[in-house]
Amino acid sequence: MKCCIMKALVTGGAGCIGSDLCSRLLEEGYGVVAIDNLNSGKIEHVKNLEKNKKFRFIKGDILEMSDIKKTMKGIDIVFHLAANSDVKYKDGDPTDEDLRLNTIAIYNVLECMRINNVKKIVFTSSSVVYGEAEKMPTDEDYPLRPISLYAASKVSCEALISGFCNMFGMQSWIFRFANIVGGKTRKIGKTVLSDFIEKLSANHKELEILGDGKQCKSYLLVNDCIEGMLIAIKKSNEKINIFNLGPEDFVTVDEIGKIVIDEMGLKNVKFKYSGGDRGWKGDVPRFLLDITKIRKLGWKPRYTSKEAIRIATRSLLDKGG
Amino acid sequence: MKCCIMKALVTGGAGCIGSDLCSRLLEEGYGVVAIDNLNSGKIEHVKNLEKNKKFRFIKGDILEMSDIKKTMKGIDIVFHLAANSDVKYKDGDPTDEDLRLNTIAIYNVLECMRINNVKKIVFTSSSVVYGEAEKMPTDEDYPLRPISLYAASKVSCEALISGFCNMFGMQSWIFRFANIVGGKTRKIGKTVLSDFIEKLSANHKELEILGDGKQCKSYLLVNDCIEGMLIAIKKSNEKINIFNLGPEDFVTVDEIGKIVIDEMGLKNVKFKYSGGDRGWKGDVPRFLLDITKIRKLGWKPRYTSKEAIRIATRSLLDKGG
Repeated sequence: MKCCIMKALVTGGAGCIGSDLCSRLLEEGYGVVAIDNLNSGKIEHVKNLEKNKKFRFIKGDILEMSDIKKTMKGIDIVFHLAANSDVKYKDGDPTDEDLRLNTIAIYNVLECMRINNVKKIVFTSSSVVYGEAEKMPTDEDYPLRPISLYAASKVSCEALISGFCNMFGMQSWIFRFANIVGGKTRKIGKTVLSDFIEKLSANHKELEILGDGKQCKSYLLVNDCIEGMLIAIKKSNEKINIFNLGPEDFVTVDEIGKIVIDEMGLKNVKFKYSGGDRGWKGDVPRFLLDITKIRKLGWKPRYTSKEAIRIATRSLLDKGG
Repeated sequence: MKCCIMKALVTGGAGCIGSDLCSRLLEEGYGVVAIDNLNSGKIEHVKNLEKNKKFRFIKGDILEMSDIKKTMKGIDIVFHLAANSDVKYKDGDPTDEDLRLNTIAIYNVLECMRINNVKKIVFTSSSVVYGEAEKMPTDEDYPLRPISLYAASKVSCEALISGFCNMFGMQSWIFRFANIVGGKTRKIGKTVLSDFIEKLSANHKELEILGDGKQCKSYLLVNDCIEGMLIAIKKSNEKINIFNLGPEDFVTVDEIGKIVIDEMGLKNVKFKYSGGDRGWKGDVPRFLLDITKIRKLGWKPRYTSKEAIRIATRSLLDKGG
């Protein structure tokens, strides 16, 4: 008798989104294998899952074919979340990180799926694939004009998925995410919230903002994002299913600064701007996703961008961020 | 005093299109460096150019950073034509050829350009980036849905160009070609014309056609294609300039068979079909490009698809194909 439990592989499974996804998939009745090289993911994120018999964690690197081959046995669906987690390019950074960690990495995953006859893949893409879209909100059929190497690699990943699905009878769900906040998203470092909290903890009187503070972006809580993915996987059944996933509003960086200051109980903080119209080279200063397509499946964001930012800020501060 | 001669690097410079492009660029007054690994390109294609002092040929492989680095000195514009020349995937073929020969190769080219401060790149993409478009003729803003690994790699190349141009102040011209015929296109092997001539030379009574013969594609002569590129480069000046390049009609594979039979002076040839709606796995069975954008710059195809096929067939037969 064939076992009727669906078995999922989650790459980047110890990451901020990946670990919560593993947990949610176990609740849904999936058996889950998580692979992570623990470069940015953390073993603590999945520690509480390891007592579950239906969960297995493998420390491994999907850039190594031999590592990923080990994980594919009996898998029904791959959630490919492993990626370069640093979207900001600074002068002097290597230019092949996104090519290696995103494009070549997903090729490895797809090729191992092909060899092992695994037919379904879910991929976490990003709003950045649209570049600086003239039409906002931007729908899924809008042409992709990436303005960074990170965005270019996400476009390449989507293209490779499209190629493999059509050539080898696979099926895919591609999600173009707004910025994801909340959950386990990291306390120190790379997101706007952790950056602001870190700076304000060090200096209560001044906040340095990258760019001019007028960048407008959309923010979605990790949990909302995971629910959106699960609903889309259940309810859409094309060969290639592409969905924008985000809230229906945006918030400026200045507004984010004010929310963080408010939640930290600070007053009279002066904003200092690094200047320019964007946070870093290749940053998309404004975006808003058209989510009509996923709304039709019954998903909608529970919170606005502002609310998501406030909830995520509280959560980071509670953690002693 | 700075030399005022524009210097071009042509990758795949000994190929069917590349060698004619080198010749045309020399006529236009460019200094030309051609690089080719001679896997599918041929040294004979550029033999007649080597007496020109403004031409230099380098045997080298753009997958080797050290090879391509040698070619970049003093270059003003790169025409990147080197690519996997085999678009047909057969079961058992490696799946990483397009990734390596197209995607990683163009990354190498772009990275060497960045390091050497070369600012302009021309790229030969393909109509296959659109996949099986529902809208025909298909314009440049139509979403890209590649259905083969070859097409996926062309999308990835375009994305990488877009990323590099936006990050590092480069400028690009991307051409999505119809099928190119005529000129030095090879006598034996991979194109529909050489395939038909070869088969009919061996058997005057029967022609095996891949698919059902009803595939509709557009064909453009090499010279028309080169003129189109040169006009677009002169007359368009956006950061990223994307153009479809092809005729405004298509021809069925059956019709191509009839033209070749006619030109070979054969009669009563029976068509035999390999079956299915396409020539090979990942083949796009029907496409027609919307060329409104490049027409506005003053370019139009001199010949219809049928005429181009007839001219190219004659040329191949004259060569003793």
